[in-house]
Amino acid sequence: MNKLTGIRRLVLDVLKPHHPSTIELAETLSVIDGITGVNIGLYEVDQKTENIKITIEGDQIDYNVVRQAIEKLGAVVHSIDEVAAGNRLVEEVPTLQDR
Amino acid sequence: MNKLTGIRRLVLDVLKPHHPSTIELAETLSVIDGITGVNIGLYEVDQKTENIKITIEGDQIDYNVVRQAIEKLGAVVHSIDEVAAGNRLVEEVPTLQDR
Amino acid sequence: MNKLTGIRRLVLDVLKPHHPSTIELAETLSVIDGITGVNIGLYEVDQKTENIKITIEGDQIDYNVVRQAIEKLGAVVHSIDEVAAGNRLVEEVPTLQDR
Amino acid sequence: MNKLTGIRRLVLDVLKPHHPSTIELAETLSVIDGITGVNIGLYEVDQKTENIKITIEGDQIDYNVVRQAIEKLGAVVHSIDEVAAGNRLVEEVPTLQDR
Amino acid sequence: MNKLTGIRRLVLDVLKPHHPSTIELAETLSVIDGITGVNIGLYEVDQKTENIKITIEGDQIDYNVVRQAIEKLGAVVHSIDEVAAGNRLVEEVPTLQDR
Amino acid sequence: MNKLTGIRRLVLDVLKPHHPSTIELAETLSVIDGITGVNIGLYEVDQKTENIKITIEGDQIDYNVVRQAIEKLGAVVHSIDEVAAGNRLVEEVPTLQDR
Amino acid sequence: MNKLTGIRRLVLDVLKPHHPSTIELAETLSVIDGITGVNIGLYEVDQKTENIKITIEGDQIDYNVVRQAIEKLGAVVHSIDEVAAGNRLVEEVPTLQDR
Repeated sequence: MNKLTGIRRLVLDVLKPHHPSTIELAETLSVIDGITGVNIGLYEVDQKTENIKITIEGDQIDYNVVRQAIEKLGAVVHSIDEVAAGNRLVEEVPTLQDR
Repeated sequence: MNKLTGIRRLVLDVLKPHHPSTIELAETLSVIDGITGVNIGLYEVDQKTENIKITIEGDQIDYNVVRQAIEKLGAVVHSIDEVAAGNRLVEEVPTLQDR
Repeated sequence: MNKLTGIRRLVLDVLKPHHPSTIELAETLSVIDGITGVNIGLYEVDQKTENIKITIEGDQIDYNVVRQAIEKLGAVVHSIDEVAAGNRLVEEVPTLQDR
Repeated sequence: MNKLTGIRRLVLDVLKPHHPSTIELAETLSVIDGITGVNIGLYEVDQKTENIKITIEGDQIDYNVVRQAIEKLGAVVHSIDEVAAGNRLVEEVPTLQDR
Repeated sequence: MNKLTGIRRLVLDVLKPHHPSTIELAETLSVIDGITGVNIGLYEVDQKTENIKITIEGDQIDYNVVRQAIEKLGAVVHSIDEVAAGNRLVEEVPTLQDR
Repeated sequence: MNKLTGIRRLVLDVLKPHHPSTIELAETLSVIDGITGVNIGLYEVDQKTENIKITIEGDQIDYNVVRQAIEKLGAVVHSIDEVAAGNRLVEEVPTLQDR
Repeated sequence: MNKLTGIRRLVLDVLKPHHPSTIELAETLSVIDGITGVNIGLYEVDQKTENIKITIEGDQIDYNVVRQAIEKLGAVVHSIDEVAAGNRLVEEVPTLQDR
C-alpha cells in the first residue's frame, strides 16, 4: 500500500491588493484539485492592501499550485503559519510550554 | 463531475439606518436563493445609524445579490470579514501566530 | 416550494418594572404561536426597574406579537441584540475582526 | 394540542442560615413535583449565613412551591437570575453586546 | 413510583494531614455504597497539612457516611462547595450575574 | 459483586535528570499492568534537571509500582496533583469557589 | 498478549533553516512508518532560522527515526514538549496546580 503523503491543511498569511476581492480569491482557490474548502479572514485593511489569513483544507493540496494562483491574482504569501500532512489531519496540541 | 465552487459563508460588517429594522433585513436576506440562514448581531448603535454584523450561510451564496439587497434597504457593506467557499465549509483555524 | 422566512431566534434587551415577575413574562412569551422556548436573564436590578435579556427561539417568531406582549406587561424593548432567520438557525461566527 | 407553558429552569440567588445544610435543602427541593434535578453552589460563607446559587431543572417547575419550600427552611430568595420556559429549554445566547 | 432523592454529586473542600495519602483517601471513598467515582485534587500543601478538593459522584451518596470516612482518616470537611440531587445530575449554569 | 476500587487516573509532578529521556520514561510506565496510557509534559528545563507532569490513566493503577519505576530511573515524585478512583473516572468539577 | 508500548504522540520544539520549507518537512515526516499525521506550526521567524512546533501522531512513532529525519534536513530538536505512550492516547489533564 502506498501511503498518502498529501497536505491536508495549509494556513497562509497573505498580502493582497483590494482587487480582486477575497470572494474571488476564495472561489478561485476552492476549485483547485485536491482542495475541499477554503476560508479567508480579514486581519487588517490598509489604503492599498489587505492582510488576510487563508485556511485551506483538502486531501492532496499542492502548495505550488496554490501559491501560483495567489500570485496570479496579484497577492503574495508572507508566511506558512500551519501545515498538516498525512493519512489523518492532526491538530496542533497546546502544551505546558505554550502557557 | 463539476466541482461546486459556491460561497458557503459570508460575514459582513454593515452600516445601516435604524429603519428598516434588523428583523426586516434578516427576513429579506434569508429568502434569497442559495441562502439557508442569516444571523444579524448589533455591534453599536448611534443616533442615526447602527453598525451590525451579518453572518450568512448557504450552499451557493451570490455576494452581488446580497450586496444589492443590503443597499436597496439603505445600508452599506463596510468590509467582508470572512468568506468560506468549496465543497465543505472550512472554519478559520487559530494558529500559533494568532496568540 | 415556498421558502420559510421565519425568525428563528430573537435576543432582546428589555427594561421592565419589578412586577409582573420574569417568571410571568417567560410564561406569557413561551405560549405565543411560533415560539418553542424562552430564556430570561437578569442584567441589573434598580429600585424600580430591572434590565433583562430575553432569548427567544422558535420557527416562526412574530416580533410584533412579542413586542406587544412585552409592552402589555409594562416593559419596553431597548434593542434587538440578535436576530436569526431562515431555514436553519445560523450562529454568529467570531472572526479575526472581533479579537 | 395544549402548549406546555411550564418553567424548565430556575436559577436563584438565595441567603440561608448554616442549618439546615445545603444537602438537606437540595434533597427537599429535588422531590418537589415537576423537578428533575437540583444543583446548589456556595457563593460565600458568613458567620451566620451562606449565600448560595440554586439551579433547578424540570418540566413543570412551580416557583411558588419552590419559594415556600426555601422559606420554610429559613432561607430567602434574593433574586431570580435566570428563568427558562416553553416546550424546549432555551439557553441564554452570548451576543456582541455582552462582550 | 417513589422519586429518587439521592445526592448525585458532592464537592468538598477538605483539610487533611499528609498521611494517609490522597490515594488511600480516594480508594476508601470510592468503595462506599452509592458512590461510583471519586476525584481528589490538590489545592495547597503546607508543612503539616494539605488542602484538597474532593469531587464525588454516584446515585445515592450518603454525606454522613462520607464525612465519617473522611474524619476517620484524620481529615476535616471545611465546606460543601457543590451539591447535586434528583433524578438527573443538574450542572450549575453560569448566568449574567456571574460575569 | 466486588466493587472495583482501582485508581483510574494519577497526575504527578516529577523532577528528573535529563537522562533517561521523557520518551523512555513514558514507554516504561505505559507497559506497567493496569495502565492504558501515559502523557508526559515538560514544565521547565534546568541545567541538570527537568520538571515534568505525568498523567497516567488505566483501570487498576498501582501507585507504588509507578513510583518505584519512576525512582528506578533516577526521578522523584514531588506531589500527587490529582487522583481519580472508582467504577467510573470522575473529573474535577469547577465550582463557584474556584472563580 | 503483548502490550503495545508505542509512542502515540510527540510534540517537538524545533529550530530549522528557511529551506527546506515546513511543507517539505511535514511531507517527509508524514510518510515515516508508524506515523499517521503531522502538524507543523510557526512559532517565530528570524533572518536565518524558523522556530517551529511539530505535533506528530501515530501508533508506533520511533523518535530516533523522527529526529534523524529532522536533522537530515538541517533542523535540530530543542525540546520534547509532550510525549504520549500506551494502548490509548492520554491527554494532559489541567489540575488545580496549573491555575
